[in-house]
Amino acid sequence: MNKHDVVRLRVNFKTLEEFENFREYGQQELSMKEDLQENIVENDSDSPFYGVYFGNKLVGRMSLYKISRKFDFYFEPPQDYFELWKLEVLPGYQGKGIGQALVDFAKSFGLPVKTNARQRSDDFWVKQGFEPLTYQTERDRGENPYVWFPKGVTEQAYDTES
Amino acid sequence: MNKHDVVRLRVNFKTLEEFENFREYGQQELSMKEDLQENIVENDSDSPFYGVYFGNKLVGRMSLYKISRKFDFYFEPPQDYFELWKLEVLPGYQGKGIGQALVDFAKSFGLPVKTNARQRSDDFWVKQGFEPLTYQTERDRGENPYVWFPKGVTEQAYDTES
Repeated sequence: MNKHDVVRLRVNFKTLEEFENFREYGQQELSMKEDLQENIVENDSDSPFYGVYFGNKLVGRMSLYKISRKFDFYFEPPQDYFELWKLEVLPGYQGKGIGQALVDFAKSFGLPVKTNARQRSDDFWVKQGFEPLTYQTERDRGENPYVWFPKGVTEQAYDTES
Repeated sequence: MNKHDVVRLRVNFKTLEEFENFREYGQQELSMKEDLQENIVENDSDSPFYGVYFGNKLVGRMSLYKISRKFDFYFEPPQDYFELWKLEVLPGYQGKGIGQALVDFAKSFGLPVKTNARQRSDDFWVKQGFEPLTYQTERDRGENPYVWFPKGVTEQAYDTES
């Protein structure tokens, strides 16, 4: 058993209630709640969220979603990759390696990982082995793209022709 | 003269220094600084940033960028639209209508406007006449999409086929 076990989160009312403790709460969470209320998804179905529990309490989470190679504008050679977002550890549980456990989980598939680094979180991502990409207005639109390259993968040259 | 004049910001060292006062500072700003230092852009060339000054001080800003119709997954009929990001007013200057002046400027072109609403800023966007879109994991990837529809424009039905 690892220090922090990362588990895939189930869509149920308990999980959604726990999500309200996190700062980044918006349309994604509201849409999951609606889908559950309207029985569009089953209670306890899988979500794109992964988390770490401390006892019964969800203390860290992230969303991780596999993007198809045909939408890859970041990596060379172009390939399937993971988009990671809403990485967040609750206050009081930070500095214990929970964020790192989540990121390690994302890297464990051996595919590239891309994230949009939040305000002034650059140091964290560099510590996790991520690198900033060259900013491209049309592709990035205000994002702060950081990526993790598995061996043999590099940054994709960006086609600036419109 | 309006209460708050919105001006297009010039890329120069003074502007970039002012950007450091804002919370959302990342690869976009760093890339502008590098382009300027390496003479890839001229001092004083135009940027995708617009701002409001109080005296000589930049107190509010946003990035506004026209996206071509072929990349429009949000509006019906599909059309050119504006992506708005990094809307931010410095503490001490909030609550004076500066944010609204920036948003009004974005709407003044008569094209749809799309933004990614930040954490718990939903009330602000609703007040500005924006509406949340139905969250689509593949399209939105953790974004919190809010849009402003000009007359005759509606939400694009999302093609869930992969």
